[in-house]
Amino acid sequence: MLGVMFRVSVFGESHGPCVGVLIEGCPPGVEVSEEDMRRELLRRSKGFMSTPRKEKEEVFIASGVFRGKTTGTPIVLLLRNSDVNSKPYEVFRRRPRPGHADYVARIKYMGYHDHRGGGIFSGRITAGLVAAGSVAKSLLRRQGIRIAAHTVQIGKVRVEREMSFDEVLRAEESPVRCADPEKSREMMEEIAKASEEGDSSGGVAEVLAVGLPVGLGEPPIDTLDGDLCKAIMVVPGVKGIEFGDGFRMAEMRGSEANDPFVLRDGKVVMETNRSGGINGGISNGMPVKIRVAFRPTPSIRKEQRTVDLDSVEEVSLRAEGRYDSCIVPRAVPVLESVVAIVLADHLLRWLSWMKFSELGTK
Amino acid sequence: MLGVMFRVSVFGESHGPCVGVLIEGCPPGVEVSEEDMRRELLRRSKGFMSTPRKEKEEVFIASGVFRGKTTGTPIVLLLRNSDVNSKPYEVFRRRPRPGHADYVARIKYMGYHDHRGGGIFSGRITAGLVAAGSVAKSLLRRQGIRIAAHTVQIGKVRVEREMSFDEVLRAEESPVRCADPEKSREMMEEIAKASEEGDSSGGVAEVLAVGLPVGLGEPPIDTLDGDLCKAIMVVPGVKGIEFGDGFRMAEMRGSEANDPFVLRDGKVVMETNRSGGINGGISNGMPVKIRVAFRPTPSIRKEQRTVDLDSVEEVSLRAEGRYDSCIVPRAVPVLESVVAIVLADHLLRWLSWMKFSELGTK
Amino acid sequence: MLGVMFRVSVFGESHGPCVGVLIEGCPPGVEVSEEDMRRELLRRSKGFMSTPRKEKEEVFIASGVFRGKTTGTPIVLLLRNSDVNSKPYEVFRRRPRPGHADYVARIKYMGYHDHRGGGIFSGRITAGLVAAGSVAKSLLRRQGIRIAAHTVQIGKVRVEREMSFDEVLRAEESPVRCADPEKSREMMEEIAKASEEGDSSGGVAEVLAVGLPVGLGEPPIDTLDGDLCKAIMVVPGVKGIEFGDGFRMAEMRGSEANDPFVLRDGKVVMETNRSGGINGGISNGMPVKIRVAFRPTPSIRKEQRTVDLDSVEEVSLRAEGRYDSCIVPRAVPVLESVVAIVLADHLLRWLSWMKFSELGTK
Amino acid sequence: MLGVMFRVSVFGESHGPCVGVLIEGCPPGVEVSEEDMRRELLRRSKGFMSTPRKEKEEVFIASGVFRGKTTGTPIVLLLRNSDVNSKPYEVFRRRPRPGHADYVARIKYMGYHDHRGGGIFSGRITAGLVAAGSVAKSLLRRQGIRIAAHTVQIGKVRVEREMSFDEVLRAEESPVRCADPEKSREMMEEIAKASEEGDSSGGVAEVLAVGLPVGLGEPPIDTLDGDLCKAIMVVPGVKGIEFGDGFRMAEMRGSEANDPFVLRDGKVVMETNRSGGINGGISNGMPVKIRVAFRPTPSIRKEQRTVDLDSVEEVSLRAEGRYDSCIVPRAVPVLESVVAIVLADHLLRWLSWMKFSELGTK
Repeated sequence: MLGVMFRVSVFGESHGPCVGVLIEGCPPGVEVSEEDMRRELLRRSKGFMSTPRKEKEEVFIASGVFRGKTTGTPIVLLLRNSDVNSKPYEVFRRRPRPGHADYVARIKYMGYHDHRGGGIFSGRITAGLVAAGSVAKSLLRRQGIRIAAHTVQIGKVRVEREMSFDEVLRAEESPVRCADPEKSREMMEEIAKASEEGDSSGGVAEVLAVGLPVGLGEPPIDTLDGDLCKAIMVVPGVKGIEFGDGFRMAEMRGSEANDPFVLRDGKVVMETNRSGGINGGISNGMPVKIRVAFRPTPSIRKEQRTVDLDSVEEVSLRAEGRYDSCIVPRAVPVLESVVAIVLADHLLRWLSWMKFSELGTK
Repeated sequence: MLGVMFRVSVFGESHGPCVGVLIEGCPPGVEVSEEDMRRELLRRSKGFMSTPRKEKEEVFIASGVFRGKTTGTPIVLLLRNSDVNSKPYEVFRRRPRPGHADYVARIKYMGYHDHRGGGIFSGRITAGLVAAGSVAKSLLRRQGIRIAAHTVQIGKVRVEREMSFDEVLRAEESPVRCADPEKSREMMEEIAKASEEGDSSGGVAEVLAVGLPVGLGEPPIDTLDGDLCKAIMVVPGVKGIEFGDGFRMAEMRGSEANDPFVLRDGKVVMETNRSGGINGGISNGMPVKIRVAFRPTPSIRKEQRTVDLDSVEEVSLRAEGRYDSCIVPRAVPVLESVVAIVLADHLLRWLSWMKFSELGTK
Repeated sequence: MLGVMFRVSVFGESHGPCVGVLIEGCPPGVEVSEEDMRRELLRRSKGFMSTPRKEKEEVFIASGVFRGKTTGTPIVLLLRNSDVNSKPYEVFRRRPRPGHADYVARIKYMGYHDHRGGGIFSGRITAGLVAAGSVAKSLLRRQGIRIAAHTVQIGKVRVEREMSFDEVLRAEESPVRCADPEKSREMMEEIAKASEEGDSSGGVAEVLAVGLPVGLGEPPIDTLDGDLCKAIMVVPGVKGIEFGDGFRMAEMRGSEANDPFVLRDGKVVMETNRSGGINGGISNGMPVKIRVAFRPTPSIRKEQRTVDLDSVEEVSLRAEGRYDSCIVPRAVPVLESVVAIVLADHLLRWLSWMKFSELGTK
Repeated sequence: MLGVMFRVSVFGESHGPCVGVLIEGCPPGVEVSEEDMRRELLRRSKGFMSTPRKEKEEVFIASGVFRGKTTGTPIVLLLRNSDVNSKPYEVFRRRPRPGHADYVARIKYMGYHDHRGGGIFSGRITAGLVAAGSVAKSLLRRQGIRIAAHTVQIGKVRVEREMSFDEVLRAEESPVRCADPEKSREMMEEIAKASEEGDSSGGVAEVLAVGLPVGLGEPPIDTLDGDLCKAIMVVPGVKGIEFGDGFRMAEMRGSEANDPFVLRDGKVVMETNRSGGINGGISNGMPVKIRVAFRPTPSIRKEQRTVDLDSVEEVSLRAEGRYDSCIVPRAVPVLESVVAIVLADHLLRWLSWMKFSELGTK
């Protein structure tokens, strides 16, 4: 379960009957637009040179929504799986794909796991996150919090310059969700080239969240960045996370890394945002800025070495089936969703203290 | 609270009477050596050119340990604060240090926070984590799990080559906890130089954990890497985390990034460890390898711009007080501790399923 | 969410599309028999003079079960709602039924709740608990733990004598699930009489759980009896819970209330079971014995006084719709289920420590 | 851990160095009066013919309070143990007291438990609950919520009539905390008589909480009554809990048990309070009314039968040591405290939704 007040659990297997999500603790009256949800889900399902698997992406609202608004009781959102072909996956039970969860799944679940389509380790599981993210985004809009993500690196192609929130929103126009048109083209070339070679590409996506009040996060344990990390790690393929200038901060001196406080129109802000909107585990009012590194998809058509776990011998393997050459563009709306889920939770926690402080004025 | 079976909460302020930790769910019979604990705490308190504040680092075992072993009931470990000088911090209530939590603390806690010595945002809070980590390490030894960390970067000085677990253990001999003697010297120079200039340095530490069984981690939500991230974020100053090849994986092709399965002495292992010991949120039997980026200490003697929150005007600030020029060397034992805490929790969860599977054989 | 290792969340509204349950943390390999589940659900749906609403009670396994066994990943079980008639409930939005949750629901959920059929406050929600209970019972069988419940009081008709576990199992033959044939008849008369008068009856059910090892429960906070209480309170209509001799113990002296330890075949047992199988929040190896008081169904056809919340005036109300005259007989399998859920959780926690203690023997 | 927003964990053993409590999630600015806390603790330590063990009941505030107010960060409150005599308890390791946790403790904790003075199973542990309760009460006062408890039964002496909140407050004047002077005398006689005979007495205490808004409680799982039960079960010796008319409701018809809604000064209230202030797991605005049954203290000087676990033979036992003849009077402030802890948690959850609903008006 993610969250304390806004609590989210996902379930479902890639080739089982459905995937979905349970949301507990959402306050009543939050607008749930099926159209919005569907749009977000279509964003998730559409990538550049992505798997040809086509889902209808129609959400079945099983509970917790009445007359278009949340009721305040548990919400379940379901997405039927269809267009599945489980055949190519049979061999991975005995011959695990290098870099994939096939091997750990077999050992951990003692052979009882549903391996078809990668089971719970499939990107399909993220559809539930996106459905939940749509509710979270609707909730956050009430406070004026908005979230957008974009692709900033595919393979060795990198967007070096900073992007404003509005620029990031325009990334949606690019097939790889990169807001820089030049880099967008290069990224497509990289993905196409890797794909032609039967290979796959990694990359980096960046998430921005704006409109946060100062004060989200509950250190020492429930830091905002810690909870964001845990939620982001639910997304398959993540191998690194950084906030603000992240790993580049390791090279800096304090005098370079610190964001000076200044007054703008009588309000306290920071002149720079190297901290990425979070200090000491608490939002500081500046945009939250997170960069997430994705490994290249482990399922590739190139020949790889693996072990046959039944016969216990080294063998070679080419992964048949339908895979994304690069998951980063499709991960963009998923990252927005998990960030929205965490912010919704911390917003509700923060609102409680705000309201409590008002009691004191009586 | 961190954890589900082995649950850890920290408390205490830098200049309050004490810092400490509560551990719940620890099984009975785990050896608790006060000597071990003290040694770990001394590792934490000793850094290169670190704060001259000197604590006795004597742990007061308030509950949950009897005759040198855990009882199975809640454990509380306390460390008295002493040698405190709160005076230099008074000004930070109104004039927050750039890059520090002074500002967010004042807003979030509505002025009720204990600002002295940085309060809960001080590195002092990590003493509780180290005390808990000592218990977790003792627990993990029963399964043969060992953890070691070292400094791999200070400023622009970087250790490029891979280190084995045994090499990492030798990092303890270096004043900056870097296992490469050459780089160790350069790191000391960098820290000294920054300090002379009234500035501070960032860096990167790496943690290795060996001896894990295949199967720790409970995806989709409670992934091993996600829980590790959340715990690591409790450590002050962390701005980035990566597993295995991390951000470098974003540049790779799948064929480069995947770790081939091979047989060694009839056992399935991976030929490389680019995944850092975790696939799909579950330990894969290879060493868990995590790299953590630390920002430079925000408290510096150089002049910086800030805002006086009472008079609402821009002012300049030089941070008086005792600060570490670079916290990375001191963070090394802290990172080992938070990793140990998470692994202890996931080990206990895993043991439950192991035992349950044995019931089936009856 | 109930539980720490075996975690259960329920969802769904009476007249929404479905009700259901999410189970997280269930180990892999637990047999899930759709036939067993259906039998338990039919037990729940069948009562004496109960609501004529007829559901198919077919469980849709949405995730977490593969080839008849649990996979170790989240399980979702769904039950479609059908045969619903929401019309009679419309009036309760403005004119709340005395004794019912109509009023608190309107205020708490600010009017956004789904009131149809009582929404989440309907007994229908317990179908999800029973589905989860069926999985929990299957898990518990591996340890030899069995659970049975029966009706011991309806109105003023009371079963005074103690029943053995085997006798309790025979309660299933009675239309009111009372193992005493004489009292069973009297209970039916009481229910019929109340029903004829447009009224409803309360009662008491007793749950027995046998085969528990000594040691389930994690005081000081997660006591076995405390976790049982919390789970039992999820069942609608519960107003009292007691363990062993319960409230009668308040009248006793210590010398009467204490269960003497004796040897039977060389094993330590208690001669009596006034404590109801739990001491200090921990199972003591004797049968766990719980008695649960249910209020009479608040929805009655007799005229009652209430307030019209829209016009703000006192009015009289007769509840139209389909209600159970007495829910106690139908609550019997539900109580078994919630007890099974809690015991499954504590069993998994206990198994972890058992396995850990074996590591020590290496 | 109890609670979601206001989270409480207790720790400590009877004859260890201290007992105490950790509170997380308490908002900043709540007044913490050491005098209040001490008064509550003295109430807990004073009973009629209770253990002669005398503690100073001075709370050591280890963290989370600054200048007399909570800081918003984790609070730890400690109470030193003193005046301990562990000698009489040595025998209970091998010869468990009937009715006591000695036996289950030895098995569950595999002999590693701290048995001295009953360890964590001692009533001493409740001092931490009372310290936390004092903070919770202070928090609740800001919303106008007040709590009071009293003794309503000792042995066969029962207070039959209903008491108003103000009457209950006067129970403090009675040595057994019974608000009826006549019954108070009879209760003292019962306790004295049992004590003379080397025996102990059980009883029942009632808790009232007034001033709650409509809407505390989060069904279906986190019901207000369920969370209250779980917290109450932390108090040693509880064997039964009922809300409102509780077990007596089992005898009633719906028409008798339902509380009619009426208008009083234009406000909706209930004419009676048989439901005890809770419907459907949610507070209904009427006083919350809970009755709690306590078993007689298991430690008695009368000869009892037990088993020597080392020599495996039946033996007889007289419990030496200092015990309360009846714990009910001393449990009164403890019950108030655990109820306050649960209400504080649910109040904070409720305030979050209240504040969120205000965002919508923008």
